[in-house]
Amino acid sequence: MHNKPIVATMIGDPCGIGPEVVVKSLVLDDIHALCRPLVVGSVESVQQTVDMLKYDVTVRRVTDVEGVGLDPKVIDVYDTGQLDPKYITLGKANAECGHASAAWLKEMDELALAGKVQATIMGPINTDALKMADKFDAVVGVEVGKTYLFLITGPLRVVHLTDHIPLRQVCDIISPDLVYKALRTIHDDFTRWGIPNPRIVVAGLNAHAYGEEDTQQVAPGVEKAKAEGIDVTGPAPPDSVFRWCIDGKYDVVLCMFHDQGHIAVKTWGFVGNCAMILGTPYIHMSVAHGTAFDIVGKGIANHEMMLTSMRNAASLGAGTGFYREAATA
Amino acid sequence: MHNKPIVATMIGDPCGIGPEVVVKSLVLDDIHALCRPLVVGSVESVQQTVDMLKYDVTVRRVTDVEGVGLDPKVIDVYDTGQLDPKYITLGKANAECGHASAAWLKEMDELALAGKVQATIMGPINTDALKMADKFDAVVGVEVGKTYLFLITGPLRVVHLTDHIPLRQVCDIISPDLVYKALRTIHDDFTRWGIPNPRIVVAGLNAHAYGEEDTQQVAPGVEKAKAEGIDVTGPAPPDSVFRWCIDGKYDVVLCMFHDQGHIAVKTWGFVGNCAMILGTPYIHMSVAHGTAFDIVGKGIANHEMMLTSMRNAASLGAGTGFYREAATA
Repeated sequence: MHNKPIVATMIGDPCGIGPEVVVKSLVLDDIHALCRPLVVGSVESVQQTVDMLKYDVTVRRVTDVEGVGLDPKVIDVYDTGQLDPKYITLGKANAECGHASAAWLKEMDELALAGKVQATIMGPINTDALKMADKFDAVVGVEVGKTYLFLITGPLRVVHLTDHIPLRQVCDIISPDLVYKALRTIHDDFTRWGIPNPRIVVAGLNAHAYGEEDTQQVAPGVEKAKAEGIDVTGPAPPDSVFRWCIDGKYDVVLCMFHDQGHIAVKTWGFVGNCAMILGTPYIHMSVAHGTAFDIVGKGIANHEMMLTSMRNAASLGAGTGFYREAATA
Repeated sequence: MHNKPIVATMIGDPCGIGPEVVVKSLVLDDIHALCRPLVVGSVESVQQTVDMLKYDVTVRRVTDVEGVGLDPKVIDVYDTGQLDPKYITLGKANAECGHASAAWLKEMDELALAGKVQATIMGPINTDALKMADKFDAVVGVEVGKTYLFLITGPLRVVHLTDHIPLRQVCDIISPDLVYKALRTIHDDFTRWGIPNPRIVVAGLNAHAYGEEDTQQVAPGVEKAKAEGIDVTGPAPPDSVFRWCIDGKYDVVLCMFHDQGHIAVKTWGFVGNCAMILGTPYIHMSVAHGTAFDIVGKGIANHEMMLTSMRNAASLGAGTGFYREAATA
């Protein structure tokens, strides 16, 4: 029997729907069955949300991970006093919440690096608030060759070699080394999470993976990974690889640019997906939606993505692979 | 009450599954309710297929369209004797069948240009056979700025501005004029088919449609079309437009290159889709599968795509819009 991992979830900007989707997910029994959940943020924000939703749970402030997340009737909030609750202005961004969001991300990072929590989830932060606080750099971004955006929606799992880069530039910067590095990261991370020898398929750059870049810039990187024993196929036709992954032929797709993966994920189904940054020292998930200021405080926010993030963070953090039910969604 | 359109379907290469998917579709009552079907090809090939499938229908040879396609128990085959039936070598390509395929395509084109049939469908032809016959140019291709590959799968309808062109080149050749011309073709064709003032959304080239090409090469073409009263939006985020179309917000997507549209169509669902060449003088459909030599003659070929093609060809040919049941598939 595994010790259950501690999964830390930062509430996101407290003026948005973050606290609501976190609380809605945490009251479901299965989260406690999978992990020991810990919320990072403002205890007052979480209490206000519990009151709004009229849930019968206790909100407890903690400043360490000792004994947290064991009682399904208690929501443990790691709160070191970063936010004066008077700044919780629902539906409206302010600099103080931006500062607090950045501080919570930093605290969560420290907990993870110290091995006190096994996985982290970033709730929906607010870009305006972070910019007001001059703290936008607190959010872990994607850096070509180091970190990779990884989208998960049921059995469709897609790692992006590049993210927000003009298509013209994508054609230039793709290289065997870049492809190889990403494959090595996927292989090693998946193995650590309980998917040993993941079957990886690489999307080519051009239609039918039939172009100069495919043979010269992509293929040699795939070959190098293969020579090291990584189970990888490609470059393959970009219009086929995502369906192959959905159908279970592969565990994950490595695609070349933002829209290859995003078109597949967002067209196939968008409700239950979650995002991850691959290449970080620990499991780093987030939700694919924003703070939705227009519906804050109404109790109508959909917590599907947060739930998927928590389930996958818990399952991967325990080293037991991706969450299974999500795989049949 | 409309006069029902005559829909001509070329059987494809007689050595492949073309005749089988055609015959399987034609025995369904709803095709005769929608149109007057006419098969173009070899009467012997169709008879052999009917015998293999043990269907209770009569195969009749015709050499004109007078009175064709009225009796659901009769399959009318337009056959001017282009193929000696001894060359029907199931599962194996030969030059004679390549010659015949090219001749049937030419005959179907002539019938359509003469206004004798209102829509055409090309069954799965065989590339090898056509090449053996040196007749590959008989197949209507896509020519940038003139004709466009149009994929239809239920409510997801996608016109491709470019097809098999290296991505790097796509970035260069996209122009306001190219975008405008495609929008004009879509608007005029849809209006003629019974979808007046179609709501068109244009996918940008780069992620979030946020790039130089989007503002300089795509946007001005969209604006020109808008100024002429065409209902068009964009350039919009390529990862969102396909879902918007599925959800009914738009009637059709104009995308910039092969994989944008193909990833969406093939990832979302592949069974019931069909293809069209836009920009030709008449309705020109085809199926998205090949001759499947490995399963010929077994009666197990899936005719879903041919059926979708026939239903849409009939419905568009009658000027009554896209086939409805397909829209909820």
